[in-house]
Amino acid sequence: MELLKQRIREDGVIKGTEVLKVDSFLNHQMDVELFDAMGAEFKRRFSGCEVNKILTIEASGIGIACLAARHFGCPVVFAKKSQSRNISDNVFCAKVESFTHGKVYDVVVSREYLHPEDKVLLIDDFLANGEALRGLAAIVAQSGAQLVGAGIVIEKAFQPGGANLRAQGMRVESLARVAAMSEDEGITFAD
Amino acid sequence: MELLKQRIREDGVIKGTEVLKVDSFLNHQMDVELFDAMGAEFKRRFSGCEVNKILTIEASGIGIACLAARHFGCPVVFAKKSQSRNISDNVFCAKVESFTHGKVYDVVVSREYLHPEDKVLLIDDFLANGEALRGLAAIVAQSGAQLVGAGIVIEKAFQPGGANLRAQGMRVESLARVAAMSEDEGITFAD
Repeated sequence: MELLKQRIREDGVIKGTEVLKVDSFLNHQMDVELFDAMGAEFKRRFSGCEVNKILTIEASGIGIACLAARHFGCPVVFAKKSQSRNISDNVFCAKVESFTHGKVYDVVVSREYLHPEDKVLLIDDFLANGEALRGLAAIVAQSGAQLVGAGIVIEKAFQPGGANLRAQGMRVESLARVAAMSEDEGITFAD
Repeated sequence: MELLKQRIREDGVIKGTEVLKVDSFLNHQMDVELFDAMGAEFKRRFSGCEVNKILTIEASGIGIACLAARHFGCPVVFAKKSQSRNISDNVFCAKVESFTHGKVYDVVVSREYLHPEDKVLLIDDFLANGEALRGLAAIVAQSGAQLVGAGIVIEKAFQPGGANLRAQGMRVESLARVAAMSEDEGITFAD
């Protein structure tokens, strides 16, 4: 998606060879007009898939998923990273390792909001090692729903998550795939 | 907002006299079409205020804020509840006590995304004791930006947050104000 790649080139900040900060428009400050265009692009790529539910994970996936959901005409469910007192124990659950935060946490979704007849699209901001998507896919599998695929904003194609998940049969559509990056030479996109 | 009150009556689940679960449409599964209508209502109430930034707090405020932001034509910034490795130390920070989770946490916003010339609208899903709004308002004050007010989806008007914040001069607009609730008698709205 050219609009997104251009924005990453202009406003993304590279730290070392692995960290890409896109805080200014994607995951701290959020450019909702851009999110709307990304939502339209996800809809174009997954048209005809009869998606009736979008599943994302807190926190930075939520805004992207909500703007996308307008284009699909469906609700969003967001997986929670820890069990709150107000969530029933009746949940689907998967363990996810966060390389960013260096810890393993539980990801939970109430059993009330995923059903065998659902066709679920996963949405998230980043795909690197693929841990979050793997956890969300495990939750969809537990529910018996059909996993349509995953829509990702930025895939770090130099990390193994995307290749591994595709090898396991998941359809992964990334709006921008970063092949390599460095502070000196900037970003090279995969396509 | 009648559409919202009707939805709360139909799908809200009351536990005791203080907990109102609206997981099915507001803060776990999210009805994006309803969010869009709520966004239009926030815009109607704060029209003419020249809002150029919406500030919310992760996680359940984000979807509501993003749909509202489309109506205001402005970006959203979401305050984070803990400091991630990818956020610079250069942040505005406030301590917030969560009665739901029984703990105190830091709420942070990068200094890059709030400026003295900003006119900021706070958006959140619930207002009860007012701790989250108080923390967000403190962050806006630190930045030197102008606080336009707060748009809340559900105010528990039987708890002191709304009255206290209004007494301190904050304009608080709540789309549904719950005066009282009980498992036996259901919900009474304030207006």
